[in-house]
Amino acid sequence: MKNEYIDIDTLKFLLYHVHNIEDLLDKDRFKEYDKTAIDIFIDSIKTFSDTALFPFIKDMDENPSYFKDGKIHIHSQFENILKNAGEMGLVGAMYDFDNGGLQLPATIFHAAYYIMEAANNHVPGYFGLTAGSANLILSFGSQMLKDTYVPNMLDLTWGGTMCLTEPQAGSSLSDIATSATPTKEDYYLIKGQKIFISAGDHQFSNNFVHLVLARIQGAPSGIKGVSLFVVPKNRPVGDGELVYNNVAIAGEFEKMGQKGYCTTHIVFGDNDDCRGWLVGEPNKGLSYMFQMMNEARIATGRMGAAIASAAYHSSLKYANERPQGRKLNSTGQKNSEEEQTLIINHPDIKRMLLNQKAIVEGSLSLIIETANYLDKEMTSSSKEEKDKYDLLLELLTPIAKTYPAEQGIKSTSDAIQILGGYGFCFDFMPQQYYRDIRIIALYEGTTGIQSLDLLGRKITIQNGKAVDLLAEEIMMSINEANKYDELKPYSKILLENLSLTKNVINDLIPYAAKGNYERYLADATIFMEFFGTIVLGWQWLKVAVKAKKILVEGNTDQPDLFYKSKIHTMKFFFTYELVKTKGLSKILMNTEELTTKISNDIFN
Amino acid sequence: MKNEYIDIDTLKFLLYHVHNIEDLLDKDRFKEYDKTAIDIFIDSIKTFSDTALFPFIKDMDENPSYFKDGKIHIHSQFENILKNAGEMGLVGAMYDFDNGGLQLPATIFHAAYYIMEAANNHVPGYFGLTAGSANLILSFGSQMLKDTYVPNMLDLTWGGTMCLTEPQAGSSLSDIATSATPTKEDYYLIKGQKIFISAGDHQFSNNFVHLVLARIQGAPSGIKGVSLFVVPKNRPVGDGELVYNNVAIAGEFEKMGQKGYCTTHIVFGDNDDCRGWLVGEPNKGLSYMFQMMNEARIATGRMGAAIASAAYHSSLKYANERPQGRKLNSTGQKNSEEEQTLIINHPDIKRMLLNQKAIVEGSLSLIIETANYLDKEMTSSSKEEKDKYDLLLELLTPIAKTYPAEQGIKSTSDAIQILGGYGFCFDFMPQQYYRDIRIIALYEGTTGIQSLDLLGRKITIQNGKAVDLLAEEIMMSINEANKYDELKPYSKILLENLSLTKNVINDLIPYAAKGNYERYLADATIFMEFFGTIVLGWQWLKVAVKAKKILVEGNTDQPDLFYKSKIHTMKFFFTYELVKTKGLSKILMNTEELTTKISNDIFN
Repeated sequence: MKNEYIDIDTLKFLLYHVHNIEDLLDKDRFKEYDKTAIDIFIDSIKTFSDTALFPFIKDMDENPSYFKDGKIHIHSQFENILKNAGEMGLVGAMYDFDNGGLQLPATIFHAAYYIMEAANNHVPGYFGLTAGSANLILSFGSQMLKDTYVPNMLDLTWGGTMCLTEPQAGSSLSDIATSATPTKEDYYLIKGQKIFISAGDHQFSNNFVHLVLARIQGAPSGIKGVSLFVVPKNRPVGDGELVYNNVAIAGEFEKMGQKGYCTTHIVFGDNDDCRGWLVGEPNKGLSYMFQMMNEARIATGRMGAAIASAAYHSSLKYANERPQGRKLNSTGQKNSEEEQTLIINHPDIKRMLLNQKAIVEGSLSLIIETANYLDKEMTSSSKEEKDKYDLLLELLTPIAKTYPAEQGIKSTSDAIQILGGYGFCFDFMPQQYYRDIRIIALYEGTTGIQSLDLLGRKITIQNGKAVDLLAEEIMMSINEANKYDELKPYSKILLENLSLTKNVINDLIPYAAKGNYERYLADATIFMEFFGTIVLGWQWLKVAVKAKKILVEGNTDQPDLFYKSKIHTMKFFFTYELVKTKGLSKILMNTEELTTKISNDIFN
Repeated sequence: MKNEYIDIDTLKFLLYHVHNIEDLLDKDRFKEYDKTAIDIFIDSIKTFSDTALFPFIKDMDENPSYFKDGKIHIHSQFENILKNAGEMGLVGAMYDFDNGGLQLPATIFHAAYYIMEAANNHVPGYFGLTAGSANLILSFGSQMLKDTYVPNMLDLTWGGTMCLTEPQAGSSLSDIATSATPTKEDYYLIKGQKIFISAGDHQFSNNFVHLVLARIQGAPSGIKGVSLFVVPKNRPVGDGELVYNNVAIAGEFEKMGQKGYCTTHIVFGDNDDCRGWLVGEPNKGLSYMFQMMNEARIATGRMGAAIASAAYHSSLKYANERPQGRKLNSTGQKNSEEEQTLIINHPDIKRMLLNQKAIVEGSLSLIIETANYLDKEMTSSSKEEKDKYDLLLELLTPIAKTYPAEQGIKSTSDAIQILGGYGFCFDFMPQQYYRDIRIIALYEGTTGIQSLDLLGRKITIQNGKAVDLLAEEIMMSINEANKYDELKPYSKILLENLSLTKNVINDLIPYAAKGNYERYLADATIFMEFFGTIVLGWQWLKVAVKAKKILVEGNTDQPDLFYKSKIHTMKFFFTYELVKTKGLSKILMNTEELTTKISNDIFN
């Protein structure tokens, strides 16, 4: 199943050459691993994806998860998948050896999940959320919570979830109303409703460990009164016995895509017998949950890039096989006596393939970069270094979530377009990927929420220190590129874009300084598109530098065309995408206030 | 059902004020109608849409058309819908009174279908294709064909289709292989397969009249050997008796959207007993079919604008009802003690609503403009005038098809985004509109095909005369706008864009002149986006001019805010969309040839 949904050679090129993952393996934390071990791990994930995941993606769409008699039912293939994933250690892939994990770098963890999600995006959330919730318990929970819950989550006997959203609150976490009433015992009584809970229940795990945001009675209003609880569906009462903990499944949200991945409505404590155990200190729940939310943001962006990869490869396969039309001759005519040409020979098809390649591979590079900052932060030898990577991680996280989502939606639409009418039909995959990927711009904070985080928090953090650090990183790539004549024109463009970014930020900051935060943030989503495009331009320049270096040095382990294709795609990205930042900067610097100073009644 | 899917006040403002439809009613052809009669017609269409169409759109999605036992089955509500539509004269709305039609202007025909498609886009194709195919017979068919087929099509007792696409040819009509063998009688024997035939069969019409492109044996290769035939599913043999004509339904294409509108696979003559009657002269089939294709292109764009309208109104309703989050105060904080605000109060939501409003109403204005050129051409008093409107119609047709399709896809995505997670769920409509509208960029020639038509044919026609004529029309709007200080900055921007258009065309033409047609057309799709955005800018300026004029003259028949909202939306379009043309022009004028001079192997 070569290249049916992913290009493993490109993934490895990004890991080993562009992002120098081998440097990480020298660190103490990862010293058990060498390149061979990592390759074996990645190849085993690919085999698992080829055999257990990819063959079922269409069937999971056609036989969605559903709610019946108080239970969620998911596709029968999950029994085998979950068993294998548990045995392979996919939940604890990043955890310390001491906690039963594989202690792999985050980069490798994300690479593995990327492969699985490209093969079948309906699946890996079931392990990913279990990984995130168990990690939350490991990070902030008591020894009792760790001992009671983590071992069963590690092998997927039990599933884990994050329960944030409530019907009346949506993204507004300060309006969480689920209540936690203290008792004389070590637990609280939990009562409330949570919606949109991914992987919230199914027939193949005999228990679920919900990480629930709730408000202890009497707590301050807003986010300062939100605490985090472990609330099992069934509570262990010793000797492996489980007692139902009054966690009722109220329904399943029927969605237009990602239908195999259940999205549940959970009611806690409708009989006032739902027990929850506090994680860490009271009223600090949101700060703990942010660890998992930040992981989940990178994971969501990764899933977007992965779905876009599958769509790209599906449309590439079609373009390589489908004859239609003819090339124009020098009088602008076609010779109908000639055989039809393959559609990949039409420039418009090539443009759509290059656009997909640029978005897919560029997004993947950004995901790896972001994960790499996490690895570097975890293994840094000084506080200064740790702080630096922490800031870079903070800055890139909302972009790593959003760029692959928003641009992946567009690139997946190109995959449909390449197939023409067939692209809209159930007989081919692009329409499914197009439906599946649309959720990525909504999960874990919509694009609007991520954009507020980027412009409202991350850009202004420590007086813009994160942006300065990123600019230093980008300058390093620019300086590298300047060593090669072929790349100089592009490093110049990226430099101009860095300077444009400064202009835009300098233009906007005064609004915030004067207290006009509404105006400052009004076009945050446009800023995300603007800044995200520049960050991707940086990733592509970085990719091209490494490809060029390998070609010049003759250090190839792939055909030359492999490296040339990276340089070509960088040029495409700069010519067709990065060129748009100027127009976006004009939107950002416009002074008309068209979305802030206008009555709602103009719509009515 | 006020404003659940359409804003009728805006439709009427565009018809009567922006596009001065009343001028048409002075023409001889339309003298039976006055404004009151048109209003009554439009209002009756709205009532029909409210009661018979809109209530069934969700159910048609949930119960798609399907193939069983050699037949296509469509939703049961169609029995009532088709009966009523037949009685209302919707098929012959534009035909001459002499042909049993209502002899309405094209603008009113399209306005009526726009309302119906906004209410339920799965429906009107069944009448629209019957209208187009009967019109083809009226235009080019023999008296026998007219007498035999048209009367039963007019009241929808029989349906009509256009049969172009074949499995091996797709959009490449020169590769049509369906054969027509002459006989000693007045008919040919037809043999071949056609796919993607919209409205190709169903249980509620007892006959279908297929307009089929086929090749008479011995005809030249390519499009010069394609002829047009009337091929009934059942042939009338006198006294109303019908004999099966060997037109077999082989299947239904299952699609991700527009599921109520069947898409069939038809096999003609598998038993060598399928009779077809030539329309007009041999080998001229494609030129005849272009009449219907051009009508269908405008209709398809119209349907895109209509679906986007429904999505816009659906998300607007939600934004007006859903409380979530709070406004920021002057320290950038939210007060969680306050009640939550309606989401329409958030600038990012307003931006997405304004974007939708700009795309929906601007696209509708473009559709009306295009239809108006058809009306003016039909009623013109001199050859010069006729030629002028004919050229303008030719130029705008691919844009009127494509802009609402491509931008409607984006605006419908905004509708999902406004609903957050709910937007992805079957409980709400945006996800359905998002699935439905995706086909619009594929129907009747994909965006790539339309773009080749625009840049390859329409821009170069008569040495650029069509563009010159359009520039004159745009200049008239600019001059009007210059009368008002508020509009001057925008007319200046539009003027700059006209000049930018000339630069781009002058930059590209030399490639064609030197015989490098591949390079000339390589970025045709980008040119479509570039030129389409400018044409929409013109439509918005035209709308704003009329709104301003009415306000200044105090000639209002709506609240002032109605007219101000049009001017505001124009400003939004110029500030957020038209600003992108500069970047697009840079792509068009780049000299890198990244999609033409590159081996296919870079993808493999």
